[in-house]
Amino acid sequence: MSKTPRPIPFGIMLQGPGSHMHAWKHPSNVADASVNLQYYIDVARTAEDHGIAFGFVADGLYINEKSIPHFLNRFEPITLLSALATATTKIGLAGTLSTSYSDPYTVARQFASLDLISGGRAGWNVVTSPLEGSGRNYGRPHPEHALRYQIADEYLEVVQGLWDSWDDDAFVRDRDSGTFFAPEKFRRLDHKGRFFQVEGPLNIQRSPQGQPVIFQAGASDDGIALAGKYADAVFTHAPSLEETRAFTQKVKNAAIAHGRSAADVKIFPGIGPIVGATEEEAEAKYQAIAALAGLDDALAYLGRFFDHHDFTQYDPDGPFPALGDIGANSFRSTTDKIKQDARAHGLTLRQVALQAVSPRPNFIGTAEHVADELIRWFEAGASDGFILGFSVQREGLDDFVSQVLPILQARGYHRGTLEGGTLRDHLGLPRKASRHGGDTAPVRKAG
Amino acid sequence: MSKTPRPIPFGIMLQGPGSHMHAWKHPSNVADASVNLQYYIDVARTAEDHGIAFGFVADGLYINEKSIPHFLNRFEPITLLSALATATTKIGLAGTLSTSYSDPYTVARQFASLDLISGGRAGWNVVTSPLEGSGRNYGRPHPEHALRYQIADEYLEVVQGLWDSWDDDAFVRDRDSGTFFAPEKFRRLDHKGRFFQVEGPLNIQRSPQGQPVIFQAGASDDGIALAGKYADAVFTHAPSLEETRAFTQKVKNAAIAHGRSAADVKIFPGIGPIVGATEEEAEAKYQAIAALAGLDDALAYLGRFFDHHDFTQYDPDGPFPALGDIGANSFRSTTDKIKQDARAHGLTLRQVALQAVSPRPNFIGTAEHVADELIRWFEAGASDGFILGFSVQREGLDDFVSQVLPILQARGYHRGTLEGGTLRDHLGLPRKASRHGGDTAPVRKAG
Repeated sequence: MSKTPRPIPFGIMLQGPGSHMHAWKHPSNVADASVNLQYYIDVARTAEDHGIAFGFVADGLYINEKSIPHFLNRFEPITLLSALATATTKIGLAGTLSTSYSDPYTVARQFASLDLISGGRAGWNVVTSPLEGSGRNYGRPHPEHALRYQIADEYLEVVQGLWDSWDDDAFVRDRDSGTFFAPEKFRRLDHKGRFFQVEGPLNIQRSPQGQPVIFQAGASDDGIALAGKYADAVFTHAPSLEETRAFTQKVKNAAIAHGRSAADVKIFPGIGPIVGATEEEAEAKYQAIAALAGLDDALAYLGRFFDHHDFTQYDPDGPFPALGDIGANSFRSTTDKIKQDARAHGLTLRQVALQAVSPRPNFIGTAEHVADELIRWFEAGASDGFILGFSVQREGLDDFVSQVLPILQARGYHRGTLEGGTLRDHLGLPRKASRHGGDTAPVRKAG
Repeated sequence: MSKTPRPIPFGIMLQGPGSHMHAWKHPSNVADASVNLQYYIDVARTAEDHGIAFGFVADGLYINEKSIPHFLNRFEPITLLSALATATTKIGLAGTLSTSYSDPYTVARQFASLDLISGGRAGWNVVTSPLEGSGRNYGRPHPEHALRYQIADEYLEVVQGLWDSWDDDAFVRDRDSGTFFAPEKFRRLDHKGRFFQVEGPLNIQRSPQGQPVIFQAGASDDGIALAGKYADAVFTHAPSLEETRAFTQKVKNAAIAHGRSAADVKIFPGIGPIVGATEEEAEAKYQAIAALAGLDDALAYLGRFFDHHDFTQYDPDGPFPALGDIGANSFRSTTDKIKQDARAHGLTLRQVALQAVSPRPNFIGTAEHVADELIRWFEAGASDGFILGFSVQREGLDDFVSQVLPILQARGYHRGTLEGGTLRDHLGLPRKASRHGGDTAPVRKAG
């Protein structure tokens, strides 16, 4: 704690009622939060007003009867983020879109357009889609894990190339000469690769941010390699300070291996702080959340990570069953970790399932305690910031901004307002320069 | 004029500076209109405040150095429409998306999400992409014209099926019983067709509109057949009252052939009225617009419809050249019409090119005259409304709403405000019922 304080950037998950599978049942929530636009706007504005750097919309491309309730019925990320762009002014707007089930020309356009519409606040969370069922909604076989990451690698190369289709000062719009653009600042991509052939150019200019921020969240070795090469920010788990710090170091080393610097990639563990006036009150809040899901819910929830494996066939109080390769092609890093933990601690199926569905947050207690812990993790180099994924969104957010942020601000670890204009500003990342060089200042020419 | 007046629905093209290729040069315009969000918001709000039923965003998936300037750099439709959804309250929001270069699961989600975000104001203009170059941005061969329409037909079947994934009252969200949805109101699509295999269901509920409005704009025989089967609204040309009325009748007959009624599909010719205090003032406004493009511009503009054919190789004052099949696989109905008109009227290349780039609108003159003409077309059954595509957006819109709409309103042909809540309301179309039956009222359950 002897270091000079500096602000900790926070993001917030925008996932309807919260991260708990039955958050919709919590009495503090609106039950239809996942499709309630005003609710999203209110949450985003609360976050923005308190200096939270970005909202983050997760996604999925397959549901069935066993899916998490608010995943059955939710807004699509691009439309939601674009709608929030005109309902907010400063907060960053990041969302998930899959490289396994989309076309780079479309995705490059949509995020470039969001970036321009929002004045430089867009971020793209690059995922490869864990769920096998996604392939059945897109009429093609779900690529296996390693192949998905090979596709994603080339996909990002294409998208970032398309984003540099026009130099920053390409659009001169000179009425006297009739010159709309400078021809030498028009860059055709002409990409011919293993998975993609894309001529270009993209039909949209660069934004104040240069390029949207690239988020990445895969924690497998393939995911870390991809993050090291391309990611500006990484969203990860927060099992413990030590494990998170080790992961952070691993990603930064991967960045360095790709000729980048450790500061070029910012690590954001997802945490769901629960705050009470006393430790007991915080514990009671957690117990109220845990009570939202019973054993049946928990087994179904667990099954989701393992290709909807039916866990009701086992004795819940017996040891966690051996599952072989089930789940290895979907949420690989998550399922590996569940198996390891169960083995290491000799957990029963019931324990594993209840911990999965209602995880006890490692930031729980009084606001002082939570603030202390956040500063401790941050100063220990465990992360560059945090993404807030509250089990119950509205209660979690309100408690956090009213109780924890003021303490962090008093100690010099929070600014209270967003000072920069772009998401890169909020994350301490420089504007992204074009691969073709040229001016780096955004074009701001009025007619 | 002896009929009982009834309101004429209007839409407005949202295409940056206007429909003229050099609208950006017009002194009344902002030069960067195609990427200026505030400009789009201002235009949409002006339209909404004056009772215009919907905004309409066109699109394209390929550009090169010869493209229309504001096509080089413009917002992507889904992001723009979603941003406008939170910046407006009543106006309908329709946009173009291609069935040749997208996935139905994604597109169904994005429009369903826009529909829900906007409170039932979304419309999708289904196009098959005319430009050969689109294929080079998507790494696959551009399908030929007839095949594109076969794909579009199955695509729409899939999307409309996905939109009925959940019955209107499927999401019960009963906290006491823990029931989020009624399982018997969950409808898996299980589509297995020639071009698409889509399991479903879609991960979003129906909106107040039931389904987004389907627009269609292709005027070839294939396009008319598709419109007859699926379209709620058709966007077309307005060469003359008689030709437009004949087209309208053709589309309505196609709808009847598919077991629908003539009233189920609304025809909207695109028009670009120019209004002056006198006829001479209107003519001067047109001449100022026509002066924005010279012969070189005109030849390049014409070439765009003919696969970027180089028209500078011909004597501009000779007869319009024979072109064989050039252009037949892109803008087929447009190129057929250009060829026919040139032949029928013995036009020179110069005449054809200048008329193509700066078409003389058939609604030009005093506000009284333009209002008379609109009523005459409407009462003659030439159309069910009009889409306003002004050559120069801001000037054209301001003149129209301040001078023409008050006359129409005084005569009973305009309401002045939007009374209904959804785009279907504005167009006089009923809410779309689910193919699975069930309640037709939207679910409006608060938490």
